[in-house]
Parts: sequence; C-alpha cells; structure tokens
Amino acid sequence: MTAQQKLNNKLLNNLHICVGLDTDINKIPKHLLSAGNPVLEFNRIIIENTLDIAAAYKINFAFYEKDGPKGFENIIDTVKLIPAGTLIIADAKRGDIGNTAKMYAESVFNYFKFDSVTVNPYMGIDSVKPFLEYNDKITFILGLTSNPSAADFELKKMSSGNYLYQEVIRQINEWNAKGNCGVVFGATKFENLAGNFDMLKNLYTLLPGVGTQGGKLEDIVKLFGKKNYRNYLINVSRALIYADDSKNFAFATRKKLIEYNEIVSNILN
Amino acid sequence: MTAQQKLNNKLLNNLHICVGLDTDINKIPKHLLSAGNPVLEFNRIIIENTLDIAAAYKINFAFYEKDGPKGFENIIDTVKLIPAGTLIIADAKRGDIGNTAKMYAESVFNYFKFDSVTVNPYMGIDSVKPFLEYNDKITFILGLTSNPSAADFELKKMSSGNYLYQEVIRQINEWNAKGNCGVVFGATKFENLAGNFDMLKNLYTLLPGVGTQGGKLEDIVKLFGKKNYRNYLINVSRALIYADDSKNFAFATRKKLIEYNEIVSNILN
Repeated sequence: MTAQQKLNNKLLNNLHICVGLDTDINKIPKHLLSAGNPVLEFNRIIIENTLDIAAAYKINFAFYEKDGPKGFENIIDTVKLIPAGTLIIADAKRGDIGNTAKMYAESVFNYFKFDSVTVNPYMGIDSVKPFLEYNDKITFILGLTSNPSAADFELKKMSSGNYLYQEVIRQINEWNAKGNCGVVFGATKFENLAGNFDMLKNLYTLLPGVGTQGGKLEDIVKLFGKKNYRNYLINVSRALIYADDSKNFAFATRKKLIEYNEIVSNILN
Repeated sequence: MTAQQKLNNKLLNNLHICVGLDTDINKIPKHLLSAGNPVLEFNRIIIENTLDIAAAYKINFAFYEKDGPKGFENIIDTVKLIPAGTLIIADAKRGDIGNTAKMYAESVFNYFKFDSVTVNPYMGIDSVKPFLEYNDKITFILGLTSNPSAADFELKKMSSGNYLYQEVIRQINEWNAKGNCGVVFGATKFENLAGNFDMLKNLYTLLPGVGTQGGKLEDIVKLFGKKNYRNYLINVSRALIYADDSKNFAFATRKKLIEYNEIVSNILN
C-alpha cells in the first residue's frame, strides 16, 4: 500500500491526529524504568492503545539519536510495532546536497522503512529531489514552522512581496507533480494558515504545535472544514503521550486522543 | 582543549584542509571488503595516513545513518580513532524546534563527542541556540551552500535588498557573542564569497565544494590571504578519500592532501 493510500484511508474515517512519539526516558512513567528497554516498552504500550484511532505516527529522530546505536535500534523496533496500514513519519528534517540527500532518502525509506519524512527546504530542490523520487512515499517539506523564531527567516519579506515561507510553499506546489509532496505548517501560526489556505489544496499538510506549543485544534479543523479539504494531519506529541505518568498512562493517552477525535468529528459532521 | 583551540592550532600551522569522511562502501577499494568492518577499516587507514597534515575531519552522517545502528557504531568508533587535538565536525545539518534541537545538541556533543556540528538556519535562532549553549564547541550554520539549487531560496532577494543567505550571515554574526559560531559557505560560490567577505571576519568559515563539486582551492586561499583572515577550513571529501582505489589508496590520499597543503602554504608564504 502506498503512503498516500494509507493516509487517505485514515483521513476518510475522520482520523486526523498524528501521534508524535517524542519519547524521552526522563518523561515516561517511572514504573517503566525497570523494563529491559523502557523507551521501546513505552512506545509499544502507546501504540497498542492508540492504533485503531490514530491517523499516523511520527517518530522524532532527535529523541532516539541521542542514545546512539541503541536509539536507532529503538527506531527500527518501533517501526516494526506499527502495522503496515498506518503511515509512519520520520521526523528528521533532513537537508543536504543531492549526493548526500540520496543517502538520507535511502536511509529513511529503505533501511528504516518509513512511509514519510520531513525535510528542510533551505538548500533548494537538490536536497529534496532524492526524496521525491520515491513516488509512493510522502515527503513533508518545512513551510512555516511552529516555533517563535520562524520570524527570523521564514516570516521575512522577499523582494517579490511574499514571505519566504510563501515562496517555499509555492515551490513545493511545483515539485508536486507526482502527488507525493506535503508541507509542514505550524498550528501556532493560525493567521498565516488562514491567509494562505489556497496554496495547500494539492498538498498533504502536517500541522505540529497543537498542545504544549499552544496551537488550537478546533480553529484548524474548522478552517480545513470550511473548504472541505481533508488532506491534513495534526500532530500532537507531548500533550498526548505524557497525558499521565501513572501505570494507567496509556489509558489517559487513549482518552485524550478520543477527545481530540471527537472534536474533529463534531466539527466535520 | 576547546574546539576553538584545536582548530586555531592547526590553522596557525597553515593547515586549512578538512578531510571529509563521506565513506561509502560502494566506493572504497575492493580489497577492503573482506575486512570485518570495511567502512571503519577504510576510515582508520585514511586517518592514520593524514592525521599529521589534516586541519580537521568531517563526518557526513548520511553515509553512516543509512546502515542503521551499525552505521552509528561506525561514527562512534571513527571519532575514537581521531586524537583529542584534532577538530571533528558532525556534518548533520540539524535544525528543529528548541526542545528537539536540545536533544540533537546533546547527541552530537555529549554522546558522539564531536567538537563541532553543521546546522540549518531555516527555523531561526530557536533551532540554533541549544547548540550555541556549548561555548567550547563550534557550530557551523549554513549560509550559502555549494549546490546548484542554492539559487532556489538562499540566492533569492529579500525586501531589504539583501539575499536570504546574506540575512542569515548577518544574523549569525549577532548570534556569535561567545565566538562559537561558524558559517558554511560553498567554495563553488566564489563571486558571492568575494562580494561578502567582510561578513566572515569574526566567524569560522567552512567551505565545502572543492574537488568533485568544482570549487577552486587557489582562488579561495588567495581571497582569504588578501585580508589576512586565517579562520577558514576548506573541506574536501570525495576527491581526497577516493583519490585511488588500489591497495595504496591511503598513500594517494596523503599525496593529494600534501599537494593541497603546499598550494595553501605557497600562497600564504
């Protein structure tokens, strides 16, 4: 099944919430620390308790890479825990010259077996193209990010009158001949999202920043609903996976995800 | 010893060439394939034969990451092969929100024990600051990169009249209060380098793109020499490490590095 098919299936079932596995050994429930592999055990329990109601999973490489080879084993083993019908995003924000980007693409798609990846557009098409050569994967390219210092460059005006992020999204639309491009748009940047909505029509949109970072779920779902766009994923990481730190943590995560899904369904129906 | 001290010591000895360990099992000499760990064996031999005449080493994460956990073991073991007096750069081009960038910084500096890293500025200071909190490391931030599609965004004009990469380098100068910032400037972009030279005075400059990508060593050394700037590293990867594919490959690499060093010394003296 292609990444597009996996994602579309979920979206058609009103599932728009992506579970971000930013798993940090310092934040997981203390009782798991006695497990042989606490990070993997945490991921296993979260996945088991959310699989039927999650639109996708996103694995943030930084949280694993910091544990070296062991962390990379945990990425591989976490990917294996997620059945083939569910989209898995490598949140790696890679970007390098063509020769190197080709290696990164091989790594995330062939070695680690992800369906999807996040990449950084700063270096232009050379750094994105090796990912786009995989037709059946989805490559989410940073547009306007959720963090405050998106203002440093992304929100700077170009001589064209557009902001840098608008130029980037315009380019992404040109790169999308095979329908395998997505864009990352921070849920915290609602005004910009609303103001540039028509540029997102033909792209998958990944919206991080709901929850801990302050983005508002309702506003986003209403905005997409108004135009009847269904091609978006809202990522929630910390607010979801660390909803509770007791032995019942996964129950709390599931409960929270159900609440989010209900907010989405109520607006869409 | 701080990263700055390590690098300055080499630069004062007229050593300006950084050896890029873009080690690819498909390109290393065939006789090494029977070794227990061909990639590490290749790196070991290259390092042994260049250590006294290299200004620094740069490890391109993509080439290792594609082998998964084994590749990460190779990064760790390669770092261990390089004695403490020589700068080692993690060419990882990381960039993410603060919370995540902090993890990446911990990973490259504390876990993998690098002296230095490359990062991507697109998301602004939030994504760079966690690296800059390590005073005794050097963080090279992408300015103008060596690849053709640097034209897509980096070479786009801003409403200020500057190119995006110029805005980025201006910001890097502001972020450099602790003297731990560097900039990546493609050796293939000589005209831009010459035209923006005064912005590099207080930064370490890492210049990739000499060799296979076509940048001219002599021109760069003359340019820096004219202003008496000594704060630059010229990276050569493929043209150096794959100079020869016989059993004497490391001799060919050493010979080539000596030639490069002589070009530098002849211009500087």
